[in-house]
Amino acid sequence: MKIYKIILYIRIDRTQKQFISIVKIEREFYERNNKDLILIQNQMEFVTALVFIFILCACGIVWAIFNWMAVHKVEIHHKHEGLTELLQGAEQEKIETLLEIGEHIQDGAQAFLREEYTDCSVFLAIMAVLLIFVSPWSSLAFILGAGTSMLCGYLGMAIATAANFRTAFSAITSLANAFQMAYRGGCVMGFLLVSISLSILSLIIIIYNAIIVKSDENNYEDLVMMFDYVAAYGLGGSTFALFGRVGGGIYTKAADVGADLVGKVEKNLPEDSPKNPATIADNVGDNVGDIAGMGADLFGSFAESTCAALVVSSTQLRVQTENGNTIEIGQLMYPLMVSAFGIGICILVSAYAVYISKVNHINKIESTLKFQLLLSTIALSPIIIGIAYWSLPSDFVMIAADGSIQLSDLKPYHAFLCSLLGLWSGLLIGYFTEYMTSHSYTPVREVAQSCGTGAATNIIYGLALGYLSTIVPIIAIAITALLSMKMLSFYGVALAALGMLSNLTIGLAIDAYGPISDNAGGIAEMSELGENVRESTDALDAAGNTTAAIGKGFAIGSAALVSLSLYGGYLTRIQTYKVGEEFPFAQGAKIDDPVIFAMLLIGAMLPYAFSAFTMKSVGKAALQMVEEVRRQLHEHPGIYAGTEEPDFRACIAISTKASLKEMIPPGLLVIVTPTAVGLFFGPQAVAGLLPGALVSGVQMAISASNTGGAWDNAKKYIEAGFYRNDAGEVKKKGSDEHKAAVIGDTVGDPLKDTSGPSLNILIKLMAILSLVLAGAFCRTGWLYKG
Amino acid sequence: MKIYKIILYIRIDRTQKQFISIVKIEREFYERNNKDLILIQNQMEFVTALVFIFILCACGIVWAIFNWMAVHKVEIHHKHEGLTELLQGAEQEKIETLLEIGEHIQDGAQAFLREEYTDCSVFLAIMAVLLIFVSPWSSLAFILGAGTSMLCGYLGMAIATAANFRTAFSAITSLANAFQMAYRGGCVMGFLLVSISLSILSLIIIIYNAIIVKSDENNYEDLVMMFDYVAAYGLGGSTFALFGRVGGGIYTKAADVGADLVGKVEKNLPEDSPKNPATIADNVGDNVGDIAGMGADLFGSFAESTCAALVVSSTQLRVQTENGNTIEIGQLMYPLMVSAFGIGICILVSAYAVYISKVNHINKIESTLKFQLLLSTIALSPIIIGIAYWSLPSDFVMIAADGSIQLSDLKPYHAFLCSLLGLWSGLLIGYFTEYMTSHSYTPVREVAQSCGTGAATNIIYGLALGYLSTIVPIIAIAITALLSMKMLSFYGVALAALGMLSNLTIGLAIDAYGPISDNAGGIAEMSELGENVRESTDALDAAGNTTAAIGKGFAIGSAALVSLSLYGGYLTRIQTYKVGEEFPFAQGAKIDDPVIFAMLLIGAMLPYAFSAFTMKSVGKAALQMVEEVRRQLHEHPGIYAGTEEPDFRACIAISTKASLKEMIPPGLLVIVTPTAVGLFFGPQAVAGLLPGALVSGVQMAISASNTGGAWDNAKKYIEAGFYRNDAGEVKKKGSDEHKAAVIGDTVGDPLKDTSGPSLNILIKLMAILSLVLAGAFCRTGWLYKG
Repeated sequence: MKIYKIILYIRIDRTQKQFISIVKIEREFYERNNKDLILIQNQMEFVTALVFIFILCACGIVWAIFNWMAVHKVEIHHKHEGLTELLQGAEQEKIETLLEIGEHIQDGAQAFLREEYTDCSVFLAIMAVLLIFVSPWSSLAFILGAGTSMLCGYLGMAIATAANFRTAFSAITSLANAFQMAYRGGCVMGFLLVSISLSILSLIIIIYNAIIVKSDENNYEDLVMMFDYVAAYGLGGSTFALFGRVGGGIYTKAADVGADLVGKVEKNLPEDSPKNPATIADNVGDNVGDIAGMGADLFGSFAESTCAALVVSSTQLRVQTENGNTIEIGQLMYPLMVSAFGIGICILVSAYAVYISKVNHINKIESTLKFQLLLSTIALSPIIIGIAYWSLPSDFVMIAADGSIQLSDLKPYHAFLCSLLGLWSGLLIGYFTEYMTSHSYTPVREVAQSCGTGAATNIIYGLALGYLSTIVPIIAIAITALLSMKMLSFYGVALAALGMLSNLTIGLAIDAYGPISDNAGGIAEMSELGENVRESTDALDAAGNTTAAIGKGFAIGSAALVSLSLYGGYLTRIQTYKVGEEFPFAQGAKIDDPVIFAMLLIGAMLPYAFSAFTMKSVGKAALQMVEEVRRQLHEHPGIYAGTEEPDFRACIAISTKASLKEMIPPGLLVIVTPTAVGLFFGPQAVAGLLPGALVSGVQMAISASNTGGAWDNAKKYIEAGFYRNDAGEVKKKGSDEHKAAVIGDTVGDPLKDTSGPSLNILIKLMAILSLVLAGAFCRTGWLYKG
Repeated sequence: MKIYKIILYIRIDRTQKQFISIVKIEREFYERNNKDLILIQNQMEFVTALVFIFILCACGIVWAIFNWMAVHKVEIHHKHEGLTELLQGAEQEKIETLLEIGEHIQDGAQAFLREEYTDCSVFLAIMAVLLIFVSPWSSLAFILGAGTSMLCGYLGMAIATAANFRTAFSAITSLANAFQMAYRGGCVMGFLLVSISLSILSLIIIIYNAIIVKSDENNYEDLVMMFDYVAAYGLGGSTFALFGRVGGGIYTKAADVGADLVGKVEKNLPEDSPKNPATIADNVGDNVGDIAGMGADLFGSFAESTCAALVVSSTQLRVQTENGNTIEIGQLMYPLMVSAFGIGICILVSAYAVYISKVNHINKIESTLKFQLLLSTIALSPIIIGIAYWSLPSDFVMIAADGSIQLSDLKPYHAFLCSLLGLWSGLLIGYFTEYMTSHSYTPVREVAQSCGTGAATNIIYGLALGYLSTIVPIIAIAITALLSMKMLSFYGVALAALGMLSNLTIGLAIDAYGPISDNAGGIAEMSELGENVRESTDALDAAGNTTAAIGKGFAIGSAALVSLSLYGGYLTRIQTYKVGEEFPFAQGAKIDDPVIFAMLLIGAMLPYAFSAFTMKSVGKAALQMVEEVRRQLHEHPGIYAGTEEPDFRACIAISTKASLKEMIPPGLLVIVTPTAVGLFFGPQAVAGLLPGALVSGVQMAISASNTGGAWDNAKKYIEAGFYRNDAGEVKKKGSDEHKAAVIGDTVGDPLKDTSGPSLNILIKLMAILSLVLAGAFCRTGWLYKG
């Protein structure tokens, strides 16, 4: 490994903090000459780290704004330049319709956000007040975390609802333009979210550091306390994600299923028919669930894993000096630096997609998107290695809960190996998910083929596919967890999670690309833009289905690692909790401890209960939608005749209200269960509950997402005319085989878009909530103590 | 608690083992006068225990033979006494058909058993040879365990295939007679299985005790070793159960789904049509899966939990005397005594059903069966209390792996509380399962109602119901595990498992009643016995569906506890494994140990992989059946016209071969995974793998069984004419609602009869295999050591 030779080392003199000298020094020189001179460590100054972080965040924001402007530059009016020959007579009307529908969706999305933010704010305010009892600083960080997530959700929705109809419009001229529009919309979302959240988190650290941490030699106890407060930033993000993911998930599928049940089943209207009052709500739902919900979920993962890394490293990571074990804040900046440089690399990678690669054929769409992931993973790998040598001490140790040295002789390569494990297993999970859910490969084709013997075999094969699809991701996560824990304990797990999220901007961009294309397809259909336009948008949409599945794979993989690192933080907290002279919970979490085993079992049950709740919630909310659509069609016969416009707003209001109401039972389950278990049965009980929910929830989330994705694409496979029955006849839309596939797709809807992804929130929010409340659990345990 | 005052105490003089005096002494007298006289313990002499066990087993066998004879007394010929006026002309022919079909099913079942036993014997022989390396005694016990299970399976099949057509025949005269026939058939199965297996186990203990255990004072080390060998009896039972449950599960659903796919979907034949070549195979499947498979599964649970109790108690249970801590074999007989007295009580309870209760109305069927469970639970409770005071030492301790005292001051009430917890939580699980799967209650009716909006909502609601149905059983199991571990460590868990299985005879009887009635219905249909006969058999069958679900609830609940107690045995083994002066694995299983967490995650994935395998196996085997049926119908047009008899045997042979072939991948997964993990990654890895598979598998098994049961009964609810749509119209067979329900039922078939119940085998077999191989794991760990 010669690479570290060319790395810049920042050497600081401990006694003169003001003086920063950047010297290019060969590592070997140090190792040869300073073996005993422990004081001369390669390490990063806090200020240097911050400078790089803010510069890269600023670049990310500028790149996002630039793309935002590029999207908005497409001004649509019926005399649009260069389109005049296409837009004669009736065509002009269609563009008017397109604009109108775009506005409807924009209004609907904003109406939902207003309502959601209002409801959510009340809940967040209550939690913020309660958190004051933990610490006012925690409460403040909590508010900022939730606020950042809300801001990013709002901005993401704004760009998505601006890009969707422009994508449909651009598809009139060329596929490449349409792809550009959808992808650049996704980029805005991705870069804004990561850059804003990283810079706000850094700001919090600067301010808290200035106020809370005393500037003497052994200030690491202050550091520990400070990062404990900062951790509430992650809790804030995760709590809002509960609303975004669960509420959004219920919204989107209530609208979708409700629209289908009346429209397709009862009234024989085609998908996305403008005569169906729930159509706009359905399209709004895509933005609500897949843009705002997914964004909030991944923001939560990002914020939580960063906080987990900071909490664990400030507690456990130490540099041995002649004065004892110590640590400085600059030496803890590695995880933030990885995220910051991730933004930088992803700018280059996405610029490649925007400026260099040409998506001029349908076949190129999926490969271009996948190539983005691969490119960013490859490009980030050496950068991460460099950052590790640059920012981490050249020798460090991890200390155990009792202050003894747990892992010694640690080097920067331990840290970058953890990050790389996360990064590459993320790619593996993404590619494997694509294999299991894209109809280019055997698994989905087998499911599609099983439609030949009816809906029942389709369902059986789809469920089996989902179950089977857990094997590879779980082994990848298990190996990552095993090796990173072995190397750096739970700090390693947090680094692995952040490694997986280091190309989050690209991940979010190609993920947000999906619903934008989906909306574009819907808008093209509704404004009857012609066969060739719809062919383009359908192809964009089909690729979006696969990237959505990849995004879900990332989300659940990172959620598992985040949750594990938070669990590590929780265990550290309870093991260091002291009553008088004793550490009553120091023994850790043994599986054969009665309360831990019992809670492991109950924890493993929670994802099932949660899924049952969310699926029933979708059912109930869909039923309300069905009633409203029936009412409108019955009271206003003009709607079905096409002479009267349906009341889209009423449907949007129903979906909004129902989703926010129906998310209460699953939401309470997530928040009340760990809190009640902790308060009544003590911290050991929660130490069993969390891993139970984690190991069981991950499996369910993966299988639900992939089953749903596979059914969706099996249906698309038949619709695209690839399916042949045993006699060799092609069967398309309207055939019995297609009907069987539609049943699978409908079953998959709540699985893949509501209950599956919501499980991420379950496992993460339970973990971070327990971490924040760990002290309270140690003091209570009203019914049972350890 | 005054109850113990009237208990008989058996006092033995340690120095004169021959002299047994049964004295009625008040416990308080002892406590007042003999506080320091430790030698005078109330305890049971080994011989006394054996006398009671063999007497009660003999009673069970006699009662089974008596019922067997009662079933066979119904000799069927067309001039049967008292039936002459019913059986004029054509009716006589129908009885001939009935007899013929009965014979076909009998032949088919025997053909399968022959084939299965042949294949299985080869595999068992290989395992037995390998086990010789562990110990020849283990190998012998293994062969006896597998042999007992095979014998019981054979006898169960024999009586079930003798009772099925007789039940159909009896339904001609009266419902009460038909119920008697089916229930007595079930009783034969239940009593034979439990009595034979308990007496053979006791015989093994007598012989091994005579040969292996030295007759001196401190012989408990021999006892430990001996029960270690005896434990292979459980392994034998469980290994055969793999063939019975997984192979049988694939057989029954391959035949069922295959018959339906061609018969119902392609050729529009009704269910159980004699023109369908796969019909007989379908009926054989009910016996193969639900009689032999369920029997082998529950025999495995019974044998394993008894062995676990013996292994753990011989290792850990001690009586403190002036000469140190000791234990005698008689003091370990409590678990066997509970099982023996369980047989006695169940004879009385089943005699009540046979002689006193009159099932003269359809409504009485389900309540009579449920009442059997309740009655046996109530009757057994005081008996178990008595046995505890009678057979256990009045004061005992549990010692930890390192020889120190882990739990002190233990009394018999600790033991009976564990047993009662298991017994009553079994009843609770049974009743709750009935609530979730019977169409007498809201949950199934809601699912049936959801068929109004199509198959997709039916599937969504059914899945949600299954997920929701885990809550109560899991909490019951968790509380049982928590309290019994708290009281008596893993010995308590084994006692709880045995408590749940103490009324196993009744459980098996009402469980075997189900497929007998199901077959009777099929036979009545095939021999066209008339509307009123079919009404009776349909009602018997519907009740059978519910009792089948109850049986599955018991099976999975006991499997969870059995697996946990075996896991306890495994942990004890590895913790006491010594290398030189050290105990390298003494620290136990900590969740935050990297390899344990990683394996917990992988363990939780195994049930998903296993379910995917079994579901795909059913799919593939069903496809082979489809081809055979198509071939027959195509090559012999006379079959469809009704002029030619189809070749039933060919279908049976296909199902038999396919099921035994298709069970290889899931079978290997169960056997290879723990073995490979243990050999390559050491004993700690397996200590994470087992609880992972346990906590995740239980949930899947419960939800799969209940979802399938609910869909089946939702279909029956619609068929029975209870369903009304929104407009208030009744929709029955042939309606769109019914078609939607049929899709749910077909999806549920492999879930409830193959993958769900097979998971019991996964979690039990992995645990007992690991227990037997624990020593090997400690010596290997080729890639990774603890």
